[in-house]
Amino acid sequence: MAWNAWGDPAERHALDEDTRQLIAQTLGIGGAAPARVPAEEVALRPSALPREARAALAAVVGEEHVRTDAPARLRHLGGKSTPDLLRRRAGEAGEAPDAVLTPADHEQVRSVLDACARQGVAVVPFGGGTSVVGGVEPFRGPFPAVVSLDLRRLDALVALDTESGTATLQAGLRTPEAEELLGAEGFTLGHFPQSYEFATIGGYAATRSSGQFSAGYGRFDAMVTALKVATPRGTLELSRGPATAAGPDLRQLFLGSEGTLGVITEVTVRVHRTPEERIEESWSFPSFTEGAAAVRELAQRQLLPTSIRVSDETETFINAVIAGGAAPEGCLSVVGFEGTGAQVAARRSAVAEVLAAHGAVKVAADSAAAWRRSRFSAPYLRDALLDAGVLAETLETVTSWSGLHALRTAVTGALTRELAREGFDPVVYCHLSHAYHSGASLYFTVAADGGADPAARWGAAKRAAGDAIAAAGGSITHHHAVGMDHRPWMEAEIGPLGVEVLAAVKQTLDPAGILNPGKLIPAGS
Amino acid sequence: MAWNAWGDPAERHALDEDTRQLIAQTLGIGGAAPARVPAEEVALRPSALPREARAALAAVVGEEHVRTDAPARLRHLGGKSTPDLLRRRAGEAGEAPDAVLTPADHEQVRSVLDACARQGVAVVPFGGGTSVVGGVEPFRGPFPAVVSLDLRRLDALVALDTESGTATLQAGLRTPEAEELLGAEGFTLGHFPQSYEFATIGGYAATRSSGQFSAGYGRFDAMVTALKVATPRGTLELSRGPATAAGPDLRQLFLGSEGTLGVITEVTVRVHRTPEERIEESWSFPSFTEGAAAVRELAQRQLLPTSIRVSDETETFINAVIAGGAAPEGCLSVVGFEGTGAQVAARRSAVAEVLAAHGAVKVAADSAAAWRRSRFSAPYLRDALLDAGVLAETLETVTSWSGLHALRTAVTGALTRELAREGFDPVVYCHLSHAYHSGASLYFTVAADGGADPAARWGAAKRAAGDAIAAAGGSITHHHAVGMDHRPWMEAEIGPLGVEVLAAVKQTLDPAGILNPGKLIPAGS
Repeated sequence: MAWNAWGDPAERHALDEDTRQLIAQTLGIGGAAPARVPAEEVALRPSALPREARAALAAVVGEEHVRTDAPARLRHLGGKSTPDLLRRRAGEAGEAPDAVLTPADHEQVRSVLDACARQGVAVVPFGGGTSVVGGVEPFRGPFPAVVSLDLRRLDALVALDTESGTATLQAGLRTPEAEELLGAEGFTLGHFPQSYEFATIGGYAATRSSGQFSAGYGRFDAMVTALKVATPRGTLELSRGPATAAGPDLRQLFLGSEGTLGVITEVTVRVHRTPEERIEESWSFPSFTEGAAAVRELAQRQLLPTSIRVSDETETFINAVIAGGAAPEGCLSVVGFEGTGAQVAARRSAVAEVLAAHGAVKVAADSAAAWRRSRFSAPYLRDALLDAGVLAETLETVTSWSGLHALRTAVTGALTRELAREGFDPVVYCHLSHAYHSGASLYFTVAADGGADPAARWGAAKRAAGDAIAAAGGSITHHHAVGMDHRPWMEAEIGPLGVEVLAAVKQTLDPAGILNPGKLIPAGS
Repeated sequence: MAWNAWGDPAERHALDEDTRQLIAQTLGIGGAAPARVPAEEVALRPSALPREARAALAAVVGEEHVRTDAPARLRHLGGKSTPDLLRRRAGEAGEAPDAVLTPADHEQVRSVLDACARQGVAVVPFGGGTSVVGGVEPFRGPFPAVVSLDLRRLDALVALDTESGTATLQAGLRTPEAEELLGAEGFTLGHFPQSYEFATIGGYAATRSSGQFSAGYGRFDAMVTALKVATPRGTLELSRGPATAAGPDLRQLFLGSEGTLGVITEVTVRVHRTPEERIEESWSFPSFTEGAAAVRELAQRQLLPTSIRVSDETETFINAVIAGGAAPEGCLSVVGFEGTGAQVAARRSAVAEVLAAHGAVKVAADSAAAWRRSRFSAPYLRDALLDAGVLAETLETVTSWSGLHALRTAVTGALTRELAREGFDPVVYCHLSHAYHSGASLYFTVAADGGADPAARWGAAKRAAGDAIAAAGGSITHHHAVGMDHRPWMEAEIGPLGVEVLAAVKQTLDPAGILNPGKLIPAGS
């Protein structure tokens, strides 16, 4: 993963001429952003890790697994939000971690936490580094030093129970590796978020990730049956089996805990037989409203396909231009089915009936194929847009079906107002991609002229959008998590007493407060 | 609800001659239990509620809603486990509550908690009083007095969002009332546990109830989208919408909290259009193992019907005798389907294919009809058995598919060993009735000669069964909850650090410790 851009540097590409023209016409941007500052020109402050702490940590993980060199520290600078990338393009190394640790196993993680609590060193658990909400920002809080705890060496398939359909995976496994290990035994996890190439099993659990096939396989938090968590106070092994009435579900405190309550080292998840068949098809709805109504009917009648998304008119048009094809009329919906041949056939015909009843018509398979080709590539495109001087970013939310359209209008309005400039509105579009019985998520993409200070422009737009979401009764995040960026809205989510509950749990498990300072839990009043 | 038996006294009945003969033959019991002590002969100690506390509570709820008369106190003596009933049949009023409060709304509940915290009075939240694990035992703990907080007046449908398919229900609503309110709008909750006639919406949430149609509609905890909770520290309003990544899911602390962390006053749940069609059919499997394998395949292929249960050979035989019919060969499975005509037809044929592949054959519809007629009546039957001197009780657990048969063997063995007496083994049988991707619940029924001290006999058997469940890696309860009876196994469920987390949450929300003392959370070491 590149330190100052998304993903594999070999995938870097420039915009094609059609896209450049579209940008010039719609956003009035003709030039390009300043060149990125190369890594070797970045002024990184010296590691502040005290000698005694370093020795204690080396005694746990081994000298070679305490890295303080510049390349390691740069690669752990934080996540991959647009503000993160803007800072790094400008050569700002900000709060780089003072060291990067790569423990070998759960016991080493436990001992690292002990050592850091004793030494007063902040710990930022690090998986794929794909956070877009400041979740892995190496913020030191009140401590003199901060270490990045990279879990990449916890990469084993610990156990596979083929009868119960569950697998125990170590937290540092990246998804392609996990799929390879499971695939060799005839199973799949079915979790494919956009960050799939880099994101880790532990990160999915810690952030309540949701994948592109969540309609069929469920959100990641719904897949989890057991967690092993290292905390400064000891180890928690939380297994609820398939379901239980034995009190509160404590796993649900660690799912979404973002490294603030403990370090998830092992996750037991549902796995599924590798599907015999995988099919995607494209439909076009006369309007976004009709598309949403169709998805609602599918969800409430328990007929959802494995994946379904509905793009609004603007997203439909822009994605077609980027893919170099013609845009279909109306709103594109890509629908996927996985399973045995019989399952796919049965579900496909039931879904087709509902879609058609809402005025959808099938369109050429090209759009689905384009989506499948490009479904992990949007973050690469963002880098190309940033190169071209475009401020590009995404945000997402979730609400009830009855609140969906008002929320979409409110967020679109807030982003448009904040990012408009003389003569040019920003481009703001949206799709619906995760549906439930009672509501759905909305995923917004924004492209605007960044102006002289794109980070500041985005900061204002993000605040306005977040306030609009909270005012409309949506959740501040459906699958990006909280981190530092969404923390201002957490009290609106759970109330002041809910914040106190989280703080009490943290105080119990992490009395020194070393775990991921500044994330998730609002500071006490 | 009778104070010393299950349900409506008008439903009381005696065993028929076939059943009596079966009991004599299998258990060697010929006589009958001593007659029940009538309510007016029970020595109830005077209410210990201090005058000042009584005045403070009357100021909140009104004088007429602070009851200290004997009938009210007897009706709130506790739950409906067999040991509960044995004590009451013997006229032991034990720890009767010193008063019964019936607040009108959330704000009154909040004020009651304030008053009780100030006055040092323990509070036992009370819904339908159907606990079989000591969950509503009016245990006063270290306090001089204890009140039963009966939520029956919180009985409104607060809101129905037909588009989002959610309803907000007050906690004291009994299920038939809730179904009537929802049915008038064309909706159903789909939650029908055996305690259905009496149990309340708040109780379902506080105990993570599961209904007979959980395969189709989900467990109660999975239906909940929002909770309103009164605590001594204030009110929590927890809504996650359909799903969110905004941190830990705090609702999951209150689902299953059994009144120890707060009083749930409002629950927002998924609701469904009243199904057009309801069908039940009966199948017979050659063995319990084949039956379980079929249900596993349905669950893992996401083909579960609305309800499915598989009885073992003994349960199949005994239920047939009780219903007055002939027992089918092998293991009876009752399978239910609900939905539109097309949904029912499609699912029915997919399910039939799987069942047949596991050797099941369809049997006459009588068995399904008998089950439907009697599905809420087993607790009435238990009273008749107790009258006849039979020690009858149930217990349940849940585990992974790969652990299911070993767990069944271990629990059956433990119960049989503890309850055997010279020449007569107890009757122990079981069914599988709640299935998930990764495992299923087992529900055991026991009938034995109670001897001179049936409560002590059952206590020893229950301890042996619980230890066997814990040793086999099962959960101590799938849907009966923890209460006082399962508390000894809670540390095995969540570990000592998990217990500390629960205690810290309780300390934050209920610093005086007045809420439902002695339940759920093991005492600190």
